[in-house]
Amino acid sequence: MDSTFVVGIDVGGQTSKIGVVDAEGTVLAQTVIRTDTYKDIGPYISELADAVNQVIREAGVEGKVRGIGVGAPNGNYYTGTIEKAVNLTWGGDAVVPFSKLLSEAMGGLPVALTNDANAAAVGEMKYGAARGMKNFIMITLGTGVGSGIVINGDVVYGHDGFAGELGHVTAVRENGRPCNCGKKGCLETYASATGVSRTAYEWLEKSDEPSVLRGLEKIASKDVYDAARSGDSLALKIFDFTGEILGRSFADFIAFSSPEAIVLFGGLARAKEFLLPPMENAMNENVLPLWRNKVKIVFSQLKESDAAILGASALAWEL
Amino acid sequence: MDSTFVVGIDVGGQTSKIGVVDAEGTVLAQTVIRTDTYKDIGPYISELADAVNQVIREAGVEGKVRGIGVGAPNGNYYTGTIEKAVNLTWGGDAVVPFSKLLSEAMGGLPVALTNDANAAAVGEMKYGAARGMKNFIMITLGTGVGSGIVINGDVVYGHDGFAGELGHVTAVRENGRPCNCGKKGCLETYASATGVSRTAYEWLEKSDEPSVLRGLEKIASKDVYDAARSGDSLALKIFDFTGEILGRSFADFIAFSSPEAIVLFGGLARAKEFLLPPMENAMNENVLPLWRNKVKIVFSQLKESDAAILGASALAWEL
Repeated sequence: MDSTFVVGIDVGGQTSKIGVVDAEGTVLAQTVIRTDTYKDIGPYISELADAVNQVIREAGVEGKVRGIGVGAPNGNYYTGTIEKAVNLTWGGDAVVPFSKLLSEAMGGLPVALTNDANAAAVGEMKYGAARGMKNFIMITLGTGVGSGIVINGDVVYGHDGFAGELGHVTAVRENGRPCNCGKKGCLETYASATGVSRTAYEWLEKSDEPSVLRGLEKIASKDVYDAARSGDSLALKIFDFTGEILGRSFADFIAFSSPEAIVLFGGLARAKEFLLPPMENAMNENVLPLWRNKVKIVFSQLKESDAAILGASALAWEL
Repeated sequence: MDSTFVVGIDVGGQTSKIGVVDAEGTVLAQTVIRTDTYKDIGPYISELADAVNQVIREAGVEGKVRGIGVGAPNGNYYTGTIEKAVNLTWGGDAVVPFSKLLSEAMGGLPVALTNDANAAAVGEMKYGAARGMKNFIMITLGTGVGSGIVINGDVVYGHDGFAGELGHVTAVRENGRPCNCGKKGCLETYASATGVSRTAYEWLEKSDEPSVLRGLEKIASKDVYDAARSGDSLALKIFDFTGEILGRSFADFIAFSSPEAIVLFGGLARAKEFLLPPMENAMNENVLPLWRNKVKIVFSQLKESDAAILGASALAWEL
């Protein structure tokens, strides 16, 4: 058995989660610091390094940590930089040499960095639903839609480190919804938590169909989920539509890399009972006959509170 | 310098081209046999082996051939089989153990096999427009649309050997044209030589716009090209439309693997002057800002008569 340990850090817009992980994927100790109270990267890195040292002590593994894996928005695996991450207070237009800064603050401990969805893919491959798979596509259904593509056991980074932006393939060509990225009709404008809310607002306005959603001032995807569970027919149709858009996009992804499975993770993936049937139907209807009913759609098996740390930590095993 | 040689074989529906190639990509000798006069694979393999031995003798490289590379429709790199190739007289519903049969007929010489578009990608990487590139996507624009995807210097075969069917991503969702594969709206129903003809027939029927194409009983993509060169406005619009459909699909491909370039090859790629401007515009309009104006569209530099042999032969260097 491997007697070394790794640290996983999930850098989010509001908080950063830090944990120490063993080779089996058990999180031995963890903590959280704020990300959004720092305007400059220097003080943030300094507090982050303190927090990392603290969890290492708590886990009782001083001197046995092999490296640190970091999942962060716009993280570039090749360069170890976080580039133009507008959702990070110290990000903005900058190219932040994150791995280098953190490694220096940690006395030279090696640091690997990638974006959050790629980290999730590595996590699923090492500890989760994709164990034993060499070819799969990870799709994270959160506020946006992220993706991590694994081919022959390796994450695809592309020529510049930014491959795998499947949330921004065009899902709807005609009159597609405007996306934060500046394009129109991107998959994530329909198939994310935000996308589900947008569909709800749009459809409530367009029709007179009665729905429990009508009474709400603000509609989150969780509200649509609860409505669907209570049998609300409009809410059920919203999930049918969302699942169909996802499924037909999956069909195109399969034509690209012929994965064994599509692995789903994230808040919206909790609506599995409503999303899976229309997703599977649309995927199989839109895929080449040779792949029909052959590619699995599986859901992450990682405990949600641990998943982000586990994903990031898994990167560090390769250091 | 490498003093060994390889044999490349391009298996087409009508003919099979065979050539001996050196490490610089010079075709030293070549020949052609019929494919479509054989109902059974046995006699075909036997004549093929005779032809291979003959070109090896002609090139004067007996005993110096390292292996044979084969590009064939529905060729599976992992298994060396040709599976359900309906366009081959000895294909049909069968799974033909092509590599094994040819290797036996050649006294044990190793044989590598893949589909034609993957072979073209390897050829461009070894001898052509993609020399020095580790991440690119090859698109072949012929009767259909084929593709070969290269990531980190390796062709992507997927979990089953069939990855890279980008001719069958859905380019048009609403009222898409029926495709031979059974689906609707596939890229190849619009952006192949056949697709260009279909657009011409459709548009001539739908409008009264004068065009030199109106006089023709049968319209091939070459006729549309000639008309465009003569300034025919309908023909020019057909290429605008075709280029736009290609370009916006390329944008989605880029989101997947972030290639350095898209490399085009095939009969329709000769219409570069008309296809390139709308293709580049649509690609850059539909891609994430981070890749805008950064991904090159390049055209094959291989002599067309040699390209199929070169592509197939390049596979054999890895044997």
